[in-house]
Amino acid sequence: MDYSQIISEITSNVASLYGQGKVADYIPELGKVAPRQFGFCLHLNNGEVFVHGDSEVKFSIQSISKVFTLSLAFSLLGEDIWKRVGVEPSGTAFNSLMQLEYEKGIPRNPLINAGALVITDMLVSNFQDPKTEILQFLRQLSGTQNIQYNETIAASERKTGYRNFALGYFLKSFGNLQNDVEQVLDVYFHQCSVEMTCRELASAMQVFSHHGMEPFTGQRILSMSQTKRLNAVMQTCGFYDEAGEFTFAVGLPGKSGVGGGIAALLPGQYSLAVWSPELNKKGNSVLGMKALELFTTLTGRSVF
Amino acid sequence: MDYSQIISEITSNVASLYGQGKVADYIPELGKVAPRQFGFCLHLNNGEVFVHGDSEVKFSIQSISKVFTLSLAFSLLGEDIWKRVGVEPSGTAFNSLMQLEYEKGIPRNPLINAGALVITDMLVSNFQDPKTEILQFLRQLSGTQNIQYNETIAASERKTGYRNFALGYFLKSFGNLQNDVEQVLDVYFHQCSVEMTCRELASAMQVFSHHGMEPFTGQRILSMSQTKRLNAVMQTCGFYDEAGEFTFAVGLPGKSGVGGGIAALLPGQYSLAVWSPELNKKGNSVLGMKALELFTTLTGRSVF
Amino acid sequence: MDYSQIISEITSNVASLYGQGKVADYIPELGKVAPRQFGFCLHLNNGEVFVHGDSEVKFSIQSISKVFTLSLAFSLLGEDIWKRVGVEPSGTAFNSLMQLEYEKGIPRNPLINAGALVITDMLVSNFQDPKTEILQFLRQLSGTQNIQYNETIAASERKTGYRNFALGYFLKSFGNLQNDVEQVLDVYFHQCSVEMTCRELASAMQVFSHHGMEPFTGQRILSMSQTKRLNAVMQTCGFYDEAGEFTFAVGLPGKSGVGGGIAALLPGQYSLAVWSPELNKKGNSVLGMKALELFTTLTGRSVF
Amino acid sequence: MDYSQIISEITSNVASLYGQGKVADYIPELGKVAPRQFGFCLHLNNGEVFVHGDSEVKFSIQSISKVFTLSLAFSLLGEDIWKRVGVEPSGTAFNSLMQLEYEKGIPRNPLINAGALVITDMLVSNFQDPKTEILQFLRQLSGTQNIQYNETIAASERKTGYRNFALGYFLKSFGNLQNDVEQVLDVYFHQCSVEMTCRELASAMQVFSHHGMEPFTGQRILSMSQTKRLNAVMQTCGFYDEAGEFTFAVGLPGKSGVGGGIAALLPGQYSLAVWSPELNKKGNSVLGMKALELFTTLTGRSVF
Repeated sequence: MDYSQIISEITSNVASLYGQGKVADYIPELGKVAPRQFGFCLHLNNGEVFVHGDSEVKFSIQSISKVFTLSLAFSLLGEDIWKRVGVEPSGTAFNSLMQLEYEKGIPRNPLINAGALVITDMLVSNFQDPKTEILQFLRQLSGTQNIQYNETIAASERKTGYRNFALGYFLKSFGNLQNDVEQVLDVYFHQCSVEMTCRELASAMQVFSHHGMEPFTGQRILSMSQTKRLNAVMQTCGFYDEAGEFTFAVGLPGKSGVGGGIAALLPGQYSLAVWSPELNKKGNSVLGMKALELFTTLTGRSVF
Repeated sequence: MDYSQIISEITSNVASLYGQGKVADYIPELGKVAPRQFGFCLHLNNGEVFVHGDSEVKFSIQSISKVFTLSLAFSLLGEDIWKRVGVEPSGTAFNSLMQLEYEKGIPRNPLINAGALVITDMLVSNFQDPKTEILQFLRQLSGTQNIQYNETIAASERKTGYRNFALGYFLKSFGNLQNDVEQVLDVYFHQCSVEMTCRELASAMQVFSHHGMEPFTGQRILSMSQTKRLNAVMQTCGFYDEAGEFTFAVGLPGKSGVGGGIAALLPGQYSLAVWSPELNKKGNSVLGMKALELFTTLTGRSVF
Repeated sequence: MDYSQIISEITSNVASLYGQGKVADYIPELGKVAPRQFGFCLHLNNGEVFVHGDSEVKFSIQSISKVFTLSLAFSLLGEDIWKRVGVEPSGTAFNSLMQLEYEKGIPRNPLINAGALVITDMLVSNFQDPKTEILQFLRQLSGTQNIQYNETIAASERKTGYRNFALGYFLKSFGNLQNDVEQVLDVYFHQCSVEMTCRELASAMQVFSHHGMEPFTGQRILSMSQTKRLNAVMQTCGFYDEAGEFTFAVGLPGKSGVGGGIAALLPGQYSLAVWSPELNKKGNSVLGMKALELFTTLTGRSVF
Repeated sequence: MDYSQIISEITSNVASLYGQGKVADYIPELGKVAPRQFGFCLHLNNGEVFVHGDSEVKFSIQSISKVFTLSLAFSLLGEDIWKRVGVEPSGTAFNSLMQLEYEKGIPRNPLINAGALVITDMLVSNFQDPKTEILQFLRQLSGTQNIQYNETIAASERKTGYRNFALGYFLKSFGNLQNDVEQVLDVYFHQCSVEMTCRELASAMQVFSHHGMEPFTGQRILSMSQTKRLNAVMQTCGFYDEAGEFTFAVGLPGKSGVGGGIAALLPGQYSLAVWSPELNKKGNSVLGMKALELFTTLTGRSVF
């Protein structure tokens, strides 16, 4: 298959969508990103890499970080993590807090904010220095030391992230955070602030298309069975209330972030990362979503 | 791979679960089914068929019928069907009516009761004799004329299906049913009453593992893209509020019914049907769920 | 106190509000009512009656009928009625169905539709001919034989009242309707279709300002304690999601209907009825609400 | 009426209920209160005071403080306060957070925690030293300087009041808190920690039975119309999800607190306070609720 040609065709095609979305501006730092950018990186399991457009530009991975902290917690603690967080899609965003109340503080899944906070709390309990460990893990997965927190973004989110504070205290009131809310949020805001390029992100996703083996050093991070489960969670829960829409249109497990990035994979075949900062109303990258839909259509391959 | 051996091993293994579930008894007819039964049929895309246990016993397919009426409506009306029904998972069962109210009568997806009623309403609008057409479609897909409605079951559900009447009138109040509620429910109760064996059901699911082509006559029912979407809907919405759990544990698109049947498939590879009438609290077959989890684990194959 | 003067002043004052509301048109018959009408009748406990404007014009009492069927059921069955319906305000209209689901089919209170259906079901169980008995009860309370059902309105509501059918079947699915849904709804649509004038309605409310004694024949309908409770229910639940607003602004127990009528009372002092068919967005009479607010302000008397 | 005799009879009667409830123990300090205590103070508008039992024992007024901060804000800011908080009952406790989300951060009423936080935020914005002003206001209303914060209780609540922190940050995320969440909560936890005796509390409630005039100095705190409204809010919203039950059984505007106190009044006639620390499951005093029900029954007087 001529991936280079396909990606090139996709890039031309999606350019017409510039201007339909809006760069996230709920924190000033994120709003400074230039809108008309688009990067695409395909990383095949055999090691071949195809890059296109702005795929060497760093962007804020935001919620995509939840997949990595989940993997880290899963590899450390195994099935025990599912005692404190579910694996069900969350339905509408609208219901999230109510569901949390109805379900006594057990978040529906680890990829919504409440669930990700519980996962981060696990890491805080298990590491002396959780921020360093998370960074180290991301560096290992992406095969480069060149991964950093953006302290300005992290500070910005801490200052205005009232809803995350609300979630944190709500979880705490149910006894589902073991550490100080402030401490957990500090780590959480940092993990969201990590910056990566499409190339780095696609590399970091290789572990999931390799059934849990990190291909650069050959280290097994997750068992095959765990990886199957993690991919399944991405498939059903990776896109907030567009999970169904994304599964429906794209058919790949993946995760999006409000920085405009989307990471996805086809088990046994490839991982990929796409980035374009203009978001639709549900907070997913306009060009990114379209690019992935085109990619699975043009390649004729998806999990379905 | 020695499928025969794997299925045999699964059968031995799940037998220990007899007695953990309970046969559905909300209508007397369903409650008459003998509990300790288990059937398994694997139908490979190359035509090979592996059967085990009670796979030639007829059972009530119930909600599995929703997949077939959805396919029929999708093949007739194309993308227009998504104007009246969504593709998002429904979150908790608890929320279903509220979501319907919040979303102004547009059901979250076509595999919950409300969505299936809307799909059935489409068929009622498009066919002179919808009941005959549905039966005809099922006979074509399963490659046998030996598919019938169970009029006793249909009558029983009509008599006690108050909640479905409630849903129907609720949809009608939002203008999302075009036909008489009574008429739509009559067709709906009939489609749920259809009886099939595991062998027949596995055959009928072949169209989805064949990317939309019905393999017995070679007729294309759905385009490849439509089939991808339909499989995606099954993956995210096929198991009520256990959709995530099933995706997580099994990793195949599928659909369950309160008759104890589960149908599933691996795109491009196989379809299968499993049946055992004892249900867990969420209405899914206890032995069936376990059998599928073992099957994807032992074969090492799933969509993820 | 010069009530005549006060009512006259109110009438002048509210005339400026004509055109701000909209006559209910969800059934054609109701929509035929001429909009610019206003009637007011004050009935003191000493027997004095003050009428103003269109107070001899018949209008559809609609939901105000719920107070009377509740009284009838309460007088027949006593405290037992509270096993099947609560006494709590319903919060937002938006939540009504969810609350019904959450609370297993026990409606929050007898003045929302679901609760009123349960009350009507009780009357259907207790009377050979519930429609005749309800009419008889209303004739006794209002002191006139000139009270009738409007069969055209009742038939109209039966034809389009899908949401009430949905509620009925939903209650039935929880086992909280003993009779056929169709039969209960037939009685319910009839009770809503009753037509009264402001004068007749104010008379019919006298029983509540007389602590349960119907003053025309001196018959005790409800005990003092029961009447206190019934008035309390009107105070907290009589105005759907404007219950608080009405209590706040007016401070009298009362009940409104989409026909534009509002009935209210001051225990031990008077009952009153006001009618004007133009409704605000929440379904309460625009001029009626304002008139009552002015009345308690100008008289300086309310329950608070 | 022989009030002394009635109160004495009530006291004997309710003693049989000791042991049915449980002292609040969600913070250690509150849990230290001896359970078998009961105090009752009736304060007639003519100045006569009837006390019984433990009516000179200080207890934590907790949520009853919300009525006083609301009065203070209402007297300062007038109708503007209703732009930021509603006057509708909140339905079930279960829904509170969802309603807040659905209604974009506008709490249903000022007597639920979320609404009280918004009111406290107004006081923080309007006073240099809000804690001193609140205490001063309570001292004026109760006619004694002997009113203090309990710093131990306040500190205890600050340490464990995760849910209140969650509410505060949630309101902040909607822009409905102007000040720092920490600062608002500090004032809020202090106001809840105020300790009063039944006698002092009954005195402090006199302003509401005197239509807004504080009777000790003759100063007008609220207009007649404002007082009517405030009493109405207590009637419909004063008892969380037992508001309807209390209105139904007692028929007086009032407010309860988890310290076991209940304050209530009959406009134009009297105010009263009852206290007994054993609570029912909804957080209201078991003996207190029963005592008030008996009081309105035996006196034959209520607002209805």
